[in-house]
Amino acid sequence: MIVNIGLIGFGTVGSGVYDLIMQNACLIKERTGLDLRIKTVCDIRTEDVKKKVGSINVINDWRDVITDKEIDTVVELIGGISPAKSIILESLKNGKNVVTANKKLLAEDGDEIFNTAGMSNSKLGFEASVGGGMPCILSLKYGLVGTRINTVIGILNGTTNYILTKMEDEGLTFEMALKDAQDKGFAEADPTFDIEGFDAGHKIALLSMLAYNRKVDFKSISIDGITKINQLDIEYAKEMGYVIKLLGISKLIGDEVDIRVHPAMLPMDHPLASVRNEFNAVMYITDMTGPVILYGKGAGNHPTASAVVSDIVQIARDTVKDDKALTASIDSKYLSSEKRLFRFYMRLSTEDRPGILSKISGVLAKYDISIASVIQKEIHTKNPDSKNVPLVIMTHVACEDKMLRSIDEINNFNFVEGKVTFIKVEDSLSLGDEYE
Amino acid sequence: MIVNIGLIGFGTVGSGVYDLIMQNACLIKERTGLDLRIKTVCDIRTEDVKKKVGSINVINDWRDVITDKEIDTVVELIGGISPAKSIILESLKNGKNVVTANKKLLAEDGDEIFNTAGMSNSKLGFEASVGGGMPCILSLKYGLVGTRINTVIGILNGTTNYILTKMEDEGLTFEMALKDAQDKGFAEADPTFDIEGFDAGHKIALLSMLAYNRKVDFKSISIDGITKINQLDIEYAKEMGYVIKLLGISKLIGDEVDIRVHPAMLPMDHPLASVRNEFNAVMYITDMTGPVILYGKGAGNHPTASAVVSDIVQIARDTVKDDKALTASIDSKYLSSEKRLFRFYMRLSTEDRPGILSKISGVLAKYDISIASVIQKEIHTKNPDSKNVPLVIMTHVACEDKMLRSIDEINNFNFVEGKVTFIKVEDSLSLGDEYE
Repeated sequence: MIVNIGLIGFGTVGSGVYDLIMQNACLIKERTGLDLRIKTVCDIRTEDVKKKVGSINVINDWRDVITDKEIDTVVELIGGISPAKSIILESLKNGKNVVTANKKLLAEDGDEIFNTAGMSNSKLGFEASVGGGMPCILSLKYGLVGTRINTVIGILNGTTNYILTKMEDEGLTFEMALKDAQDKGFAEADPTFDIEGFDAGHKIALLSMLAYNRKVDFKSISIDGITKINQLDIEYAKEMGYVIKLLGISKLIGDEVDIRVHPAMLPMDHPLASVRNEFNAVMYITDMTGPVILYGKGAGNHPTASAVVSDIVQIARDTVKDDKALTASIDSKYLSSEKRLFRFYMRLSTEDRPGILSKISGVLAKYDISIASVIQKEIHTKNPDSKNVPLVIMTHVACEDKMLRSIDEINNFNFVEGKVTFIKVEDSLSLGDEYE
Repeated sequence: MIVNIGLIGFGTVGSGVYDLIMQNACLIKERTGLDLRIKTVCDIRTEDVKKKVGSINVINDWRDVITDKEIDTVVELIGGISPAKSIILESLKNGKNVVTANKKLLAEDGDEIFNTAGMSNSKLGFEASVGGGMPCILSLKYGLVGTRINTVIGILNGTTNYILTKMEDEGLTFEMALKDAQDKGFAEADPTFDIEGFDAGHKIALLSMLAYNRKVDFKSISIDGITKINQLDIEYAKEMGYVIKLLGISKLIGDEVDIRVHPAMLPMDHPLASVRNEFNAVMYITDMTGPVILYGKGAGNHPTASAVVSDIVQIARDTVKDDKALTASIDSKYLSSEKRLFRFYMRLSTEDRPGILSKISGVLAKYDISIASVIQKEIHTKNPDSKNVPLVIMTHVACEDKMLRSIDEINNFNFVEGKVTFIKVEDSLSLGDEYE
């Protein structure tokens, strides 16, 4: 089935959606049977956009998008209140499904939009309004649909989390960290909206509405930003075992809600304490599941585009053949052992005499395995029956096949007691990159 | 709309599903319009089950469930291959939707089931087969539907993660930690299936099928458990900045997959390194989003029941009015300031002379605010213009209202320079508990 998309707004997120669909449309069709096509892009910078999008129709009047009978789904990515509100309301009234990332509009002024969507036969998706690439609205609406949610706590703004991380790690002042965030593109030239907590406020308002199934007045939320956080506070927090994070916090207590945004001390072993730099995370606590956390990039062109496309697909999902993946006739091809590369930890128990390390490292060298570090201490093992000492070697990246052969040889040395213990190291987020 | 459910198997998860529906059916109806009703429970222990489920029909022959014309959705929770496979296949052929938690069956022997589901008009849900309460299959199928997934890494088995955490924290041997896990109910009397990695193997096989949209032969997965992990390895790992976790790892490299389960060294600052005890987590890495992580309880009656009910609702979702929550006419009631309780961090700059701490603590005492710790050091602030010293106080739980009034009073002392900085502490997973 073809889904014709009208994309209104071709800024950071809009161009990300274009990239994603160009790159992954075949994959999406293979998974879902849906053929996503951008029929029209609407942006006031028509000439600039035309250069980027090839043969796609580019116009500058959004009314021509929302009245186009062939367009199924209108994607509003211009942000702000006007004309975004009119675009969304009129699209819904015209029978278009709508996908938006406009958290400000939905949180501050969404009543009319949600009512219009509810009364219409159209659907409204706004996954992209909170948490970029992490599916936090989907998880709330469907994953936790059977649970009573009593708490939502989130690190919902990447700019402020980046600034606080820099202040903590590098001892920067707030002003220096903000400057660094601006230089790296994690903060706007006018950062007020982020650093004063309004962005996080919009997001916690939306999550609260969904979690508790009731209206939330944005003006009722107490919001405090990070501008007053001082380097001293970060040091004292660390000394007492805490980190300071800007949190959106929402609790349902009996029949009352408590929703707020403020800097908070989190114990260092709290699962949200390790969310660093521009990453975001949301924790839901429910009566059935305990804590459930989502973690990912909260903003950016491609992560947010992923959320937009997730909504487009879900809205068209009546036609989605869920288990297409599993009924696919494609068998997997398996990576051969020679192509499997790892760093290895190896531990062996050997006699405590000269020349042994040289023999072992000689075997590793023969198989092109390079040693990253060695630990050999002047202590005996805890095994009182053994006179041997433990020798620990960490290798650089090595081929699994060669590693196994070298271990076989080392196991055969008569000065090695028992067999070598070895454990693979998983130390990059994406070791697969090495192959590409 | 009524959804009539036939529940086959009333063990841990089955009784959890019963609990959840009894407790939250009204909430689910309010959210989705769906009225979930357990019409029949099938279990061989009919007399025991009857005592628990009141007026619900209890039978012992599953054939009577799958041929019942009134039943819409069959929930298979008996596990194992036979008769679970027949229950699922015949239910699908009879036009029933099927929800199952049976990872072993789907991973080892699922071809026929996925094909039967794919050819039928029925739907098959298996969110509960991986990761209990965290919606990791939903996130893969819908949240990341627009992305090319190249890596799936998960801590997928709670038993082994609990054992490794105990070995690390308390210096227990593997055998002692296993015994502790058995005593606490986190490990079976026969733990082979968990500790040898087969459970994690089934889960990474299923996630790989969905992530890469192709068949995976369970027998092709290399599986290694944690029985060889020694206390020494855990100590050396820590010394080198790593923790040892049992990981399910799956990578798509070019056109080839590499799927395996083995203990691995993870750097301590890796986002999965802080997943402790019986918790599970899954990390997906995609071309559009970078890393996306889900974290939660991977097993247990209620978390798994949440996943089962999520599937039941999703399967019936054509009728779900997505934005019912937002068009609800319920306004939120807001928690008043007197009911807002926190621990507070406060920092002030004061003159360095006797009696000051006594005056400040006197104000706090007047407002029933008790002090947890004080830091006052013999150092001057970094501000060269000030002769004052920083005084840091951490309070016990206090009422926000009283705290604000006490800070007003403290700000008025002439020995306090500027104003008191204060930051709320968010140190429980669910501070809301205090109110209940």
